[in-house]
Amino acid sequence: MTAGPAIRVGLVIVAAGSGTRLGHDHPKAFVRLGGRSLLAHALDRLASAAHEVVVVGPPGHMAEAGVQVERSGTAARIVPGGATRTGSVAAGIDALGSVDVIAVHDAARPLVDAAALRRAVAAVVGGADASAPALPVTDTLKEVADGEVVTRTVDRSALRAVQTPQVFRADVLRAAHARGDDATDDLALVEAGGGTVVLVPGRARYLKVTYPDDLLLAEAFLASGEPEEPE
Amino acid sequence: MTAGPAIRVGLVIVAAGSGTRLGHDHPKAFVRLGGRSLLAHALDRLASAAHEVVVVGPPGHMAEAGVQVERSGTAARIVPGGATRTGSVAAGIDALGSVDVIAVHDAARPLVDAAALRRAVAAVVGGADASAPALPVTDTLKEVADGEVVTRTVDRSALRAVQTPQVFRADVLRAAHARGDDATDDLALVEAGGGTVVLVPGRARYLKVTYPDDLLLAEAFLASGEPEEPE
Repeated sequence: MTAGPAIRVGLVIVAAGSGTRLGHDHPKAFVRLGGRSLLAHALDRLASAAHEVVVVGPPGHMAEAGVQVERSGTAARIVPGGATRTGSVAAGIDALGSVDVIAVHDAARPLVDAAALRRAVAAVVGGADASAPALPVTDTLKEVADGEVVTRTVDRSALRAVQTPQVFRADVLRAAHARGDDATDDLALVEAGGGTVVLVPGRARYLKVTYPDDLLLAEAFLASGEPEEPE
Repeated sequence: MTAGPAIRVGLVIVAAGSGTRLGHDHPKAFVRLGGRSLLAHALDRLASAAHEVVVVGPPGHMAEAGVQVERSGTAARIVPGGATRTGSVAAGIDALGSVDVIAVHDAARPLVDAAALRRAVAAVVGGADASAPALPVTDTLKEVADGEVVTRTVDRSALRAVQTPQVFRADVLRAAHARGDDATDDLALVEAGGGTVVLVPGRARYLKVTYPDDLLLAEAFLASGEPEEPE
């Protein structure tokens, strides 16, 4: 893909997940962080780096998704999600118009920034089929068998923990989904198709909110202010 | 090792590391969290589950280490650390008297709890040569080659992120160190010697403070109060 002002970025924000593991009975994207929903945070932080935005909402809560999008102050179309994450991403892709690259972001990562999206887009413009922010693994990792018995220490030097937004050549992502594979990880679809995935620097504050502890950490990051975005 | 009231637990708290990556020019163990040093937190939280405690201090800052130990209100001997982490652990082991199991804890994990130590001790009493708290890996992991190009998606289902305190049969840990291998990971020394390592449940709040973001997260955990210790 050649760079240029004509590169159009379509952004799909997947906001269809449940809040069960957070201890909520309403969708996770509507959980509050510093007075606003996770979805509103993600939307406002990424929209400036995209030309088109589609929010994939929880099918039973589309009205509330509309309210959240409206409150965010960002123009976005809203479509209902599917039965699986793959289905939800596919619904988002289908709702996008003509774009060159597609970014897929999880609303459960509210403290993302537009710089992350721009870094990943730049990697795709630079020749990758897909890209995403990622962090080095700093924990000591062990592999275990039954009974939590350690079988080996894992060399973590070449391992990366992947975050979102994940950015794809539009044709590559559409082809991957057209093959009908199911995956919780769109990058894996591209890898399976022989595509090249290049990772760009992530940040700890892009963390995914899954458990109550994660929300606590997100609140701490939010309270610490917005440091300068790394480019 | 058979269970019983006669099992004696020796605890080595390694507090010899620098605070460079935290942006401090004094030792990391003296960095403050909620008004107290990381070392004082770790010491007070673990001491109730140990019969003997040795703190391995930064060689150039032994007086300050003494002050921190005194303030913590816990009786502990203090010895100077070595040039490497292995050397520091060895110095701590040498300073312990006659104990059946040895726990090695990093002062950079201030929000540990005695329950973690007791769980790991129980695993060793139950037959393991060594044990430590650990968490499942929740991030999507990729392996990369030069240029951060993804080579594969890693199956994380059998992977665990290891924390401290790490607990050992005293004879096994002493033998491992006597072999003179250098390691940042004492469990790996036991694995290399053919010993059995069994992991027990860890907690997110046992996090290691390495970078400023980690301190922020530790502060959030501390502010959230002390939930009931899982056993």
